[in-house]
Amino acid sequence: MKKLTDQILKDVITPRPENSFKGTFGKVTLIGGNRNFGGAIIMASTAAVCAGAGLVTTATDEINASALHAQLPEAMFADFTDDALVADLTQAATSVVVGPGLGNDKTSLRILKNVFAHTTEKQNVIIDGSAITLMAIEKLEQPQGNIIYTPHEMEWQRLSGIKIGEQTEDKNRAAQEKLGATVVLKKHHTEIYTDDQVYQLPIGTPAQAVGGMGDTLAGMVGGFTAEFNDKADKAVLAAVYAHSAIAEKIAESQYIVLPHQISRALPTFMKKMEKLDDNHHIGFLN
Amino acid sequence: MKKLTDQILKDVITPRPENSFKGTFGKVTLIGGNRNFGGAIIMASTAAVCAGAGLVTTATDEINASALHAQLPEAMFADFTDDALVADLTQAATSVVVGPGLGNDKTSLRILKNVFAHTTEKQNVIIDGSAITLMAIEKLEQPQGNIIYTPHEMEWQRLSGIKIGEQTEDKNRAAQEKLGATVVLKKHHTEIYTDDQVYQLPIGTPAQAVGGMGDTLAGMVGGFTAEFNDKADKAVLAAVYAHSAIAEKIAESQYIVLPHQISRALPTFMKKMEKLDDNHHIGFLN
Amino acid sequence: MKKLTDQILKDVITPRPENSFKGTFGKVTLIGGNRNFGGAIIMASTAAVCAGAGLVTTATDEINASALHAQLPEAMFADFTDDALVADLTQAATSVVVGPGLGNDKTSLRILKNVFAHTTEKQNVIIDGSAITLMAIEKLEQPQGNIIYTPHEMEWQRLSGIKIGEQTEDKNRAAQEKLGATVVLKKHHTEIYTDDQVYQLPIGTPAQAVGGMGDTLAGMVGGFTAEFNDKADKAVLAAVYAHSAIAEKIAESQYIVLPHQISRALPTFMKKMEKLDDNHHIGFLN
Amino acid sequence: MKKLTDQILKDVITPRPENSFKGTFGKVTLIGGNRNFGGAIIMASTAAVCAGAGLVTTATDEINASALHAQLPEAMFADFTDDALVADLTQAATSVVVGPGLGNDKTSLRILKNVFAHTTEKQNVIIDGSAITLMAIEKLEQPQGNIIYTPHEMEWQRLSGIKIGEQTEDKNRAAQEKLGATVVLKKHHTEIYTDDQVYQLPIGTPAQAVGGMGDTLAGMVGGFTAEFNDKADKAVLAAVYAHSAIAEKIAESQYIVLPHQISRALPTFMKKMEKLDDNHHIGFLN
Repeated sequence: MKKLTDQILKDVITPRPENSFKGTFGKVTLIGGNRNFGGAIIMASTAAVCAGAGLVTTATDEINASALHAQLPEAMFADFTDDALVADLTQAATSVVVGPGLGNDKTSLRILKNVFAHTTEKQNVIIDGSAITLMAIEKLEQPQGNIIYTPHEMEWQRLSGIKIGEQTEDKNRAAQEKLGATVVLKKHHTEIYTDDQVYQLPIGTPAQAVGGMGDTLAGMVGGFTAEFNDKADKAVLAAVYAHSAIAEKIAESQYIVLPHQISRALPTFMKKMEKLDDNHHIGFLN
Repeated sequence: MKKLTDQILKDVITPRPENSFKGTFGKVTLIGGNRNFGGAIIMASTAAVCAGAGLVTTATDEINASALHAQLPEAMFADFTDDALVADLTQAATSVVVGPGLGNDKTSLRILKNVFAHTTEKQNVIIDGSAITLMAIEKLEQPQGNIIYTPHEMEWQRLSGIKIGEQTEDKNRAAQEKLGATVVLKKHHTEIYTDDQVYQLPIGTPAQAVGGMGDTLAGMVGGFTAEFNDKADKAVLAAVYAHSAIAEKIAESQYIVLPHQISRALPTFMKKMEKLDDNHHIGFLN
Repeated sequence: MKKLTDQILKDVITPRPENSFKGTFGKVTLIGGNRNFGGAIIMASTAAVCAGAGLVTTATDEINASALHAQLPEAMFADFTDDALVADLTQAATSVVVGPGLGNDKTSLRILKNVFAHTTEKQNVIIDGSAITLMAIEKLEQPQGNIIYTPHEMEWQRLSGIKIGEQTEDKNRAAQEKLGATVVLKKHHTEIYTDDQVYQLPIGTPAQAVGGMGDTLAGMVGGFTAEFNDKADKAVLAAVYAHSAIAEKIAESQYIVLPHQISRALPTFMKKMEKLDDNHHIGFLN
Repeated sequence: MKKLTDQILKDVITPRPENSFKGTFGKVTLIGGNRNFGGAIIMASTAAVCAGAGLVTTATDEINASALHAQLPEAMFADFTDDALVADLTQAATSVVVGPGLGNDKTSLRILKNVFAHTTEKQNVIIDGSAITLMAIEKLEQPQGNIIYTPHEMEWQRLSGIKIGEQTEDKNRAAQEKLGATVVLKKHHTEIYTDDQVYQLPIGTPAQAVGGMGDTLAGMVGGFTAEFNDKADKAVLAAVYAHSAIAEKIAESQYIVLPHQISRALPTFMKKMEKLDDNHHIGFLN
């Protein structure tokens, strides 16, 4: 297993080209947030916007529209039960994030199937939370695209069939190969399984053990892969690393980290990374 | 009566174990906030989240869903008139907080009875505000669980039958023993009656005399007992102490303290406590 | 005309008694904010809460409930078309603020009449904005209570019959005497007409020329008169002075002052006033 | 093409007259924000309020009312499908901003036609986003007023018929002359075509390539032209310059700039400009 270092941030977060416009940085469509779990998709969307994606649309239950715009006027709203609209928004995206707060009832399943039917080969498709559980239970086929799963250990058990106590590197690797997808296995020292390599995240803090932390990571992966789409594989790794690097910094003065604080810290953190030259390490920047 | 000191904070707020996840820090279900008093349950929920509970769900009137998520995307929402859902959420919780802004009409009573019917022996059950009043008026039986009442003097009069002018330590102690519950009697120098001991809070400020202060305390007790469930009795005391210690600090530069400011200050305050060694007192930290 | 000085702040904003609770600082009921002007009553309510009133209830159009609690969980909500509830809340208040964003259609009039029918002799009743206009147009009788009008010049013309160009001290005084009420005439160098004296506000800044500034003042007068009810007449003057003193301070670094900034600055500003001894002037505190 | 300098800020942002009231600084009516794109009109309205317009009304889909007031209590709300109300608000405005998030369905078109039917010769009318697209597609006649278009290159292609690759100064100038309107052509180094002159904006940063940036600019142009209505032509240029000057400053420490940050920075930025004497340049102020 290869340990991730802050080098991944320097590789990915490079200065933006002078002559760029919002289209340069991609579109993210996030689908989730049922009547009960609206906060999850709002947190994921906040991460995608603050990461710097060009355009962000949030397809969610109508009850969440007000809170979404009260938190985040930068995101657009879509009713996630409007199948035609969700299909269009799925097809139009550079990165699709499906699952945060989606739930697992019949409506959730219908929405998920609709999304899966409209992704295409060139898109990044981040599958998170209840979308993973629904896939496993309903035995849905993996959709088209550059698929990135972000399960915690129980969700990974459901998807891969490997029980939590038996999730060794070898078994996980075999499961990843079968899926042909990237797997971000969220745990103490998160592991990322890709086609060529297994990475381990050596950083992180128990202050991150707060509901919504995973939704924020999923949104960051969506934002980074859209914005840095020409190096999407590295962008996944950079999002995972940045998520915990920011949390560690906040945790120096806080007992817990609220997920939205990571998102709101992204623009400043990413600027520091952009300026970092090869002789300086992230630790110097505090 | 034993005076509480900041030692209780050091005893309770210890470093989180490295290998922990959100489940480690418990689940809090808060039930309250009718059509008119939505702010109360939002403030209580904010306290529970900021205290560091692993997962927080807020069961409230549907009218409050938007404001809840606009303030606090980290909390999940449930319609408090959905009896089956509230029953499930009650049973699943480490700590249940019932009462802030619940109101005292027929619907409030139905909701309260539903909650009381589903608590279990191992849970912490914080009973606050109109839930205490309803219990007294409707002569409801005390539910199962580690019961913690957080009445102000008038609510305590209703529950215990002891008139405000006659609420002496002895009488209160006798009433507490009969109840077999912890009683946090909110007043100038709040008193906490437990099975083995009566404690007095020697700190606090009139800047706390603001609507919503008690809702915030109830939420903090919910958060602390869930997060530090293996020392739940001490966690109640620590929540009471921290609530006023933070308020005193804010009141050094403010004429009044807004309740949500206490909640938002919790992550930083708790970090300072975690770092405190035995030779240093909280006063050194300012 | 007597010029107000910062002495009025020292007279009114004194340390809170140690043994006080939220009931000590009064109740404010604010009525206003129709479908279109919800922001007005939210700004007024924010001022009342931040000024330190013990309990604040906002009676407004239901459409404003979410935004109210998203901004200000400390306030309680009531549907202003619920006549029985509004009557109760009016009677229960130490100070009633009616008018901010109330509008002037049939519903507004019905609500206003309902409020006017339920005020009592001992209450402070602040009549602002469209409530003044409706009174004048509909020739409503002045309600019971310690009445405080907060008109701008055009509203004063409607109420008193004195045209804007002819609003001299003598004429205004005569009109005030006929009304038997306090009149806060909002203008460049606001004038306050009371039973014994006419005061002029010598401070203020054109950075205050922003929509919502008057709603905030009405809310502050409501908050101050409830909190300092034993010196309610001085509390009106202190609210007017504090409103512009804070605005001047903010305007040192801002081209305009947003009304909610004044409210949010109140707790800190009032603390400074509380600490001020007689040899120090407010100017020293910056 | 004449390069804009910070001199335009000094020319426009001068100290407010002492004896002024909110009416002195004009009224802005903004129309846009359908069910899906509510954030756009909220961001535009925030810009208009923070720029210092005296009164701001936002006509939008009812679903956006809560989020508008949660973000911005200073703005008034109108249902944009209430034709009579929108007609009144259009006629009453100093500056009308139509288009941000308006959408392009039948309802959008009806609303746009209603607005266009009620503008008058003396008003500033800012036409943005989907309003430009609808005009082009539906071949709507240009409304009365001091018309200011704020298209990006694709919208300009639709309106002028000049393809993106062929949008030279000469062709754009000819199209502007035919329209008899000001054209703010948003691009890398934005160009402003007026009756007498073509200006180029030499500043700006790729950190501005974020959804909502244009909505914010449209709102700022609305705010500046209302507030500085006696020098409305220069106010357009000042708004364009200030928008990018603030963004550049924020981008010194952020990888991206969130649109609302520009609006919220306006009061402080404008104060600095007001104080600037002729020997000091904006760069000195950091």
